[in-house]
Amino acid sequence: MQRDDMILVSVDDHVIEPPDMFVGRLPTKYVDDAPRLVHREDGTDVWKFRDTVIPNSALNAIAGRPKEEYGLEPQGLDEIRPGCYDIHERIKDMNAGGLLAQMNFPSFPGFAGRLFVTDDVDFSLALVRAYNDWHVEDWCATYPGRFIPMTIPVIWDAQLCAAEVRRNAARGVHSLTFSENPAVMGMPSFHDEFWNPLWAALVETDTVLSIHIGSSGRIAVPAVDSPPDVMITLQPMNIVSAAADLLWSRVLKDFPDLRIALSEGGIGWVPYFLERADRTFDVHATWTMQDFGGKKPSEIFREHFLTCFITDSLGVGLRHEIGIDNITWECDYPHSDSAWPQAPEGLWADFQKWNVPDDDINKITYQNAMKWYSFDPFTHIKKEDATVGALRRAAEGHDISVRPRSHQIIQPQEKLEQFRMRARAAVAGTTTSR
Amino acid sequence: MQRDDMILVSVDDHVIEPPDMFVGRLPTKYVDDAPRLVHREDGTDVWKFRDTVIPNSALNAIAGRPKEEYGLEPQGLDEIRPGCYDIHERIKDMNAGGLLAQMNFPSFPGFAGRLFVTDDVDFSLALVRAYNDWHVEDWCATYPGRFIPMTIPVIWDAQLCAAEVRRNAARGVHSLTFSENPAVMGMPSFHDEFWNPLWAALVETDTVLSIHIGSSGRIAVPAVDSPPDVMITLQPMNIVSAAADLLWSRVLKDFPDLRIALSEGGIGWVPYFLERADRTFDVHATWTMQDFGGKKPSEIFREHFLTCFITDSLGVGLRHEIGIDNITWECDYPHSDSAWPQAPEGLWADFQKWNVPDDDINKITYQNAMKWYSFDPFTHIKKEDATVGALRRAAEGHDISVRPRSHQIIQPQEKLEQFRMRARAAVAGTTTSR
Repeated sequence: MQRDDMILVSVDDHVIEPPDMFVGRLPTKYVDDAPRLVHREDGTDVWKFRDTVIPNSALNAIAGRPKEEYGLEPQGLDEIRPGCYDIHERIKDMNAGGLLAQMNFPSFPGFAGRLFVTDDVDFSLALVRAYNDWHVEDWCATYPGRFIPMTIPVIWDAQLCAAEVRRNAARGVHSLTFSENPAVMGMPSFHDEFWNPLWAALVETDTVLSIHIGSSGRIAVPAVDSPPDVMITLQPMNIVSAAADLLWSRVLKDFPDLRIALSEGGIGWVPYFLERADRTFDVHATWTMQDFGGKKPSEIFREHFLTCFITDSLGVGLRHEIGIDNITWECDYPHSDSAWPQAPEGLWADFQKWNVPDDDINKITYQNAMKWYSFDPFTHIKKEDATVGALRRAAEGHDISVRPRSHQIIQPQEKLEQFRMRARAAVAGTTTSR
Repeated sequence: MQRDDMILVSVDDHVIEPPDMFVGRLPTKYVDDAPRLVHREDGTDVWKFRDTVIPNSALNAIAGRPKEEYGLEPQGLDEIRPGCYDIHERIKDMNAGGLLAQMNFPSFPGFAGRLFVTDDVDFSLALVRAYNDWHVEDWCATYPGRFIPMTIPVIWDAQLCAAEVRRNAARGVHSLTFSENPAVMGMPSFHDEFWNPLWAALVETDTVLSIHIGSSGRIAVPAVDSPPDVMITLQPMNIVSAAADLLWSRVLKDFPDLRIALSEGGIGWVPYFLERADRTFDVHATWTMQDFGGKKPSEIFREHFLTCFITDSLGVGLRHEIGIDNITWECDYPHSDSAWPQAPEGLWADFQKWNVPDDDINKITYQNAMKWYSFDPFTHIKKEDATVGALRRAAEGHDISVRPRSHQIIQPQEKLEQFRMRARAAVAGTTTSR
């Protein structure tokens, strides 16, 4: 196999929702009160919903931008790649990046759709359903075989959430984005029986619980004055907390077919984690009364958890200590951790470095994603048209140059102060509803 | 080299302080108000200081006990190995475990000596000094060459803390136990200039800042009803938060000779962490204005951080991705993670598994500890008497059998409820002063 022969199905990318996404999807009585994209005098666009204002952070829609322009300041839609919010442009960008398919997490509603929680349950439910309808029928369905559909949860009600999972599964959805720690959001924890109806629905419909880093709504900073690099370094690995919380829970014992994806969590730390979990079991299971029916925690992990990485050379080398059937790859377009459009080059270099055989490459780059997410792009696209090389040939002439910043040119010192404000809110527990 | 030829200097073990530790070490006016060990009607012993009661948890002095008896319930001194609190018995236990030397962290005052913080600064300082005097002059000095001395900090005052570091360095102390996150304890963070006098004193005296897992006083639990195994699994790796916080801080830039030990943090996760830090630097340093003078974060890490492990097979295999000069070993006697007295057997098995050459073994088992902690046991003990085999021969006939529990026999269900109470306090931020 050569680099251009790889088939890339990415399990973690992001959509910047377009302004018209609710049009025609809400009962008339809710239209005026729905979230709306507001163009501000300074040229930036923000989503507004009741008291909440959600800027489009420049780290979240950064594809194609030079590093000097990274930062947390808000942007206008006219400053970011149209591929962030326009489905046709997205496909062109995917082609240029050699990506056959993607799974797109939400942006302004938050990973767990928490923004839509209001005191009016009917309204909230209408927003969740409208969002999911837009995502499935509009965003994903426009290009069959190019997207693993994923819906947002009814985060405040496990019964309604279960019903929404079933409604979406009926039209081919097998992924639910969720919170890595509902307890931090003021909801019952993973250990509470409150969620049982949801676990049952996920198992029944073969739907994966996809928990993205940062999806508790709390960013991880040791102190309010920690440099931003601390948060950026720690964020993927912080998903280990959710992994441990679920691995040891009675949830996996009561719902043995439940499957969980640790989205953007990286993989290089996993072998250490599995060794530690097995040793914890050996030493402590007697008094903690843990019983996996004769299995070790590392075996349970491989039965239930899907991992993924963007760039993680060590993890590629340790793939068999992680579980070759448990690893997927992600592009993270259009976020700052993404190497789009050169992602295949870096990925291939790591495969070469570790002499990874073709069978392992195929599992990591697309077969595991297909299996775990019940996704088959090849009913729509021929395999020979699905490779990095074929897709890039199809994208020839597509403009991948930078779109210039036109508003809010901000100096580094001010960017750091913006981060500091966010860190303060995070430590104080007053982060916004996302 | 054979197993019995190893020389073991452990950099993380624990002393259960004996009841008479303050005798003759405090000004008369403070004697009646000092912490005291109280024997309770139920047979357990607790330290009492003002409003705080600190039980001697059964997980913290567990050496020699069968797994069925692990738990969080308090114990009496007459139930634990005398080696926990009696220096002569400790040496016999060290010999039986093949340990040449140890570094002993405090127990009842907390890793950062926070218990001694009172509204009477003179009294608090007297307690810190008395503790350190006891540790250096009594506990460590009784057997020269067998202990790396380590003192506790004046945690509320950086100037006084610096003075205490200098006072102890003058008598050969080169290790200071400290908090992994002073901000969580209500103190200024690592990033605050408040601590500059301490950093200066540490550098001047070649003293290592030894930060033990759990030393922020807050245990890591995702939710109050998370099983105890979650906390046990996560606790070592949680030190990554402090590692990142200090790695990216201006502290290491302003004090390029400062050295930090990540005590009980394990090592298997470190290569992933270093890759992630280097990538964070590559992608974000422009806007975060990080500058290491042309070096990468991973290089900075190896200049400043010492790691250690108890049992960490993968980490031994990855020793060169961590830094062969940055790894030490620990026994963790008498805590539940310790394999005492069979620790050498497990360690040797991992060295064999990875075909570790003698030079690497020697660095990991004693040479790195000697260098980083300015510790030379061989001025007191001949090398041929310092090996696992020689020490065990010296311990022949020493009783390593179990000391039976005589009080508070507690059923697993009740043990779990005790853990739940601790978790609730941790999540609510109302943990005791330790």
